Amino acid sequence: MTITILVYDNESKDNTLLYQDYLKKLLPHMTVITWNDITDCKNIDYIVTGFISAENINKFPNLKAIISLWAGINYLISQDGWNKNIPLYRMIDDKGLTAGMREYVIAHVLYYHNQIGRSINAQNHKKWQSYRPVLARHKTVGIMGAGVLGRDVGYHLAQLGFFMKCWTRTQRDDNFADNFYGDDQLLQFLQGCDYLVNLLPATKETNGILNKERLYMLAKNAVIINSGRGNVIVDEDLITALDDGHLQAASLDVFHEEPLPRHHPFWSHPCIIVTPHIASITNPDTASHYIADVITQLQSGKSPKEGLVDFSKGY
Amino acid sequence: MTITILVYDNESKDNTLLYQDYLKKLLPHMTVITWNDITDCKNIDYIVTGFISAENINKFPNLKAIISLWAGINYLISQDGWNKNIPLYRMIDDKGLTAGMREYVIAHVLYYHNQIGRSINAQNHKKWQSYRPVLARHKTVGIMGAGVLGRDVGYHLAQLGFFMKCWTRTQRDDNFADNFYGDDQLLQFLQGCDYLVNLLPATKETNGILNKERLYMLAKNAVIINSGRGNVIVDEDLITALDDGHLQAASLDVFHEEPLPRHHPFWSHPCIIVTPHIASITNPDTASHYIADVITQLQSGKSPKEGLVDFSKGY
Repeated sequence: MTITILVYDNESKDNTLLYQDYLKKLLPHMTVITWNDITDCKNIDYIVTGFISAENINKFPNLKAIISLWAGINYLISQDGWNKNIPLYRMIDDKGLTAGMREYVIAHVLYYHNQIGRSINAQNHKKWQSYRPVLARHKTVGIMGAGVLGRDVGYHLAQLGFFMKCWTRTQRDDNFADNFYGDDQLLQFLQGCDYLVNLLPATKETNGILNKERLYMLAKNAVIINSGRGNVIVDEDLITALDDGHLQAASLDVFHEEPLPRHHPFWSHPCIIVTPHIASITNPDTASHYIADVITQLQSGKSPKEGLVDFSKGY
Repeated sequence: MTITILVYDNESKDNTLLYQDYLKKLLPHMTVITWNDITDCKNIDYIVTGFISAENINKFPNLKAIISLWAGINYLISQDGWNKNIPLYRMIDDKGLTAGMREYVIAHVLYYHNQIGRSINAQNHKKWQSYRPVLARHKTVGIMGAGVLGRDVGYHLAQLGFFMKCWTRTQRDDNFADNFYGDDQLLQFLQGCDYLVNLLPATKETNGILNKERLYMLAKNAVIINSGRGNVIVDEDLITALDDGHLQAASLDVFHEEPLPRHHPFWSHPCIIVTPHIASITNPDTASHYIADVITQLQSGKSPKEGLVDFSKGY
């Protein structure tokens, strides 16, 4: 019997078909089906999906692995009632997810750094108001969560001249940055950052980690870029720090609740740019290579470590 | 008699004093004075200045060289009535000018690329409007004028994933880009560019080089970034190409006349961002090292080539 892969991207039927198409080409000896093609749930060996409920997982008794189309899998970890011995892989899509995150973060950092908003505002008043932009090498960017995405973003910001600091849960040493880790070094890390980029995953430990006390450790006029997960920010504390002028601005791509509810004060805050969770979107073309690789390795008896979710850590 | 250097930055007395201070430290055996300290014009060996008229140059009969605080020296080349055998050096300030240009161009390219304006607009309507940003590797940036600044900007845009094309007056081969040169290859260079960055100097040859015919060779929805010189653009042609939707937008830092006159249509055009010639501003700290180096070499009988203006080329 051939190996059967079930693919479905809940957000887009077009994408589901794209993935099916790519995976068929990359894994010609396997069967790649979509939700409507299922005849017997027992036949499904692998599920490739955006979101799936515990209840749906339990319909498939012979699953060898679940591969998430997203890097963020906290919604699945937090669900009970499914067999967590099934290996769960989160998306690693260097050319898609990583490039998307790199481009989003650098675009927003440079937007504030080069004062594009200030230029547009002066233009509205037809004012030729010269100023000397401060160079990147006089500014410090801190990245919280230096995994695959964070290291890529940090490396490229360093290339552009910024002074970089990284903070991670456990020790690591990236040579493009000053490295900090653990709770003990968090305040020291935050101190003096002109830009704070959050790329931490959503876990119990990261919940509300950016509270009042910590936001006020950042440099005066600092800017927050959150393209990791919305849970890290205490929303009211961010608004307070912006309103009293300690912080200059924030670009937010992720929120406690998404879509961001219409009544939420972020929508109309003059110092906040809201983007609709677009920073890092999996690219079916490039992502299919990762998926095919994980499945091929699992089928040959190996157990690839990259992307394998550690339930105790939560990512 | 000691060598005497006259420093004055017409735009800023503070800067003049900063340069004087830095140069005194770097060249302790020389005398560094400002305009008010002049006792005898015959004693001046070097002039370090932002702008100087032919009339003023002629006051100094023993000048060994003029060093410009700016990379753009066309105003001086175009003046008659001074002795053009005096070597003229334009500013090369890698850490200041080059970094400033790099940061301006990349900030503006990524502003459009990541559709930050679109996000801000959707936010004004409290609309959560998801979209898939196209990745840099699917977009082409063309750089006109790949000198010190252009090569640096191009290299960094390539690092961020953009497909790069460069166009220069004479042949050169930069390995981060597809290279084009000369009039013959100009249209081929422009074809398919999603972003066109102008860094050409102002010369007779570059006057109005971006006219209607050429602007329409760019990809549909292309964006113009002009942080080189204002003379290259035929203003009415740019407005036509924006108004009929062939071009998407333009960020302009330089103009035919500066400050941009209040009545100029660029000010109120919805697709144009006007910035007040801030892309690349000389940094006294780093620039002083270049100035000191040129003077030291000239004093020791050498004739440094980097930065030396070729009057026949116009830069």
